[in-house]
Amino acid sequence: MKALQQRILADGHNLGHGILKVDSFINHQVDPMLMHDCAQELARRFQADRPTKVLTAEISGIAPALLTALELKVPVVYARKHKPITMPDTVFLTTAPSHTKGNYVDLMVSPEYLGASERVVIIDDFLASGQTILGLIRLAQAAGAHVIGVGTLIEKSFEGGRELLEAAGMKVESLARITSLADDRIIFAD
Amino acid sequence: MKALQQRILADGHNLGHGILKVDSFINHQVDPMLMHDCAQELARRFQADRPTKVLTAEISGIAPALLTALELKVPVVYARKHKPITMPDTVFLTTAPSHTKGNYVDLMVSPEYLGASERVVIIDDFLASGQTILGLIRLAQAAGAHVIGVGTLIEKSFEGGRELLEAAGMKVESLARITSLADDRIIFAD
Repeated sequence: MKALQQRILADGHNLGHGILKVDSFINHQVDPMLMHDCAQELARRFQADRPTKVLTAEISGIAPALLTALELKVPVVYARKHKPITMPDTVFLTTAPSHTKGNYVDLMVSPEYLGASERVVIIDDFLASGQTILGLIRLAQAAGAHVIGVGTLIEKSFEGGRELLEAAGMKVESLARITSLADDRIIFAD
Repeated sequence: MKALQQRILADGHNLGHGILKVDSFINHQVDPMLMHDCAQELARRFQADRPTKVLTAEISGIAPALLTALELKVPVVYARKHKPITMPDTVFLTTAPSHTKGNYVDLMVSPEYLGASERVVIIDDFLASGQTILGLIRLAQAAGAHVIGVGTLIEKSFEGGRELLEAAGMKVESLARITSLADDRIIFAD
């Protein structure tokens, strides 16, 4: 998606070590108009698969997932990393390695909001190693739901997440595919 | 706002001890269509104040704040509770007591995204004790920004947050004002 690529080139910062700073428009400050355009495009790519629910992980997945769910007119569920007091005693929980944090995070979904009849699209801001998204797939599968595919705003193709997800049978859609962040540059796949 | 009140009565659960479970449509699973209607109403109430930015706190403030910002056509910033690697070394940080968690949380905003020229509306899901929102006001004021007011989906009027915010000179707008959660009931102000 050209508008997102142009915005990444204009306002993104390559911090080195594979880290792309996009917190002026995606994950600290959010440009809601750009996010809305991205969500319309993600919804368009999954509409025909008749999703009944969008699933994401807090925190930075919430914005793109919410707007995609609004377009698709289905509820969105965000997996929690810490258990709120309103969550039931027994939940679906999985653990995923966090590449950026260098540790493991819990991902929890209440069985109240993810059931065997659901057709789930997973939406997140980044696809990098794919570990968080694989965790979300495990949660959906634990609930007996059918996972249609995965949509993300930005893919770091050099981290291998797409290959993992496609090997798991997923349809994978990313709006901006970055093939390299070497030498202070930002190179897109197309 | 009647639609929100009706949804709270239909799908909310009074868990006792002043705790209202609304995680089937507000803060775990989100109904994007209801949230969009709420955001339109919040935007309508602050439009004339010419806001340039919406400010909220992660996690559950993101959904209503994002959609309100989309309506107002301004960026939204969510204060972070943990410092991501993309944040600069020096940030605005305040500490706020968390009523539901019984501890203190950090709230951080990058100086890149909150400046002295901003006219800020603070949006959150709940107004209870008002402590998180007072923390957001401190962050905005530390940046030299002007805080126009505070908009929330659900107010627990019996926790005194409104009085604190109004004493601080804030315009306060809530879409559903709950005056009592005693005796397993949910009582609205109007």
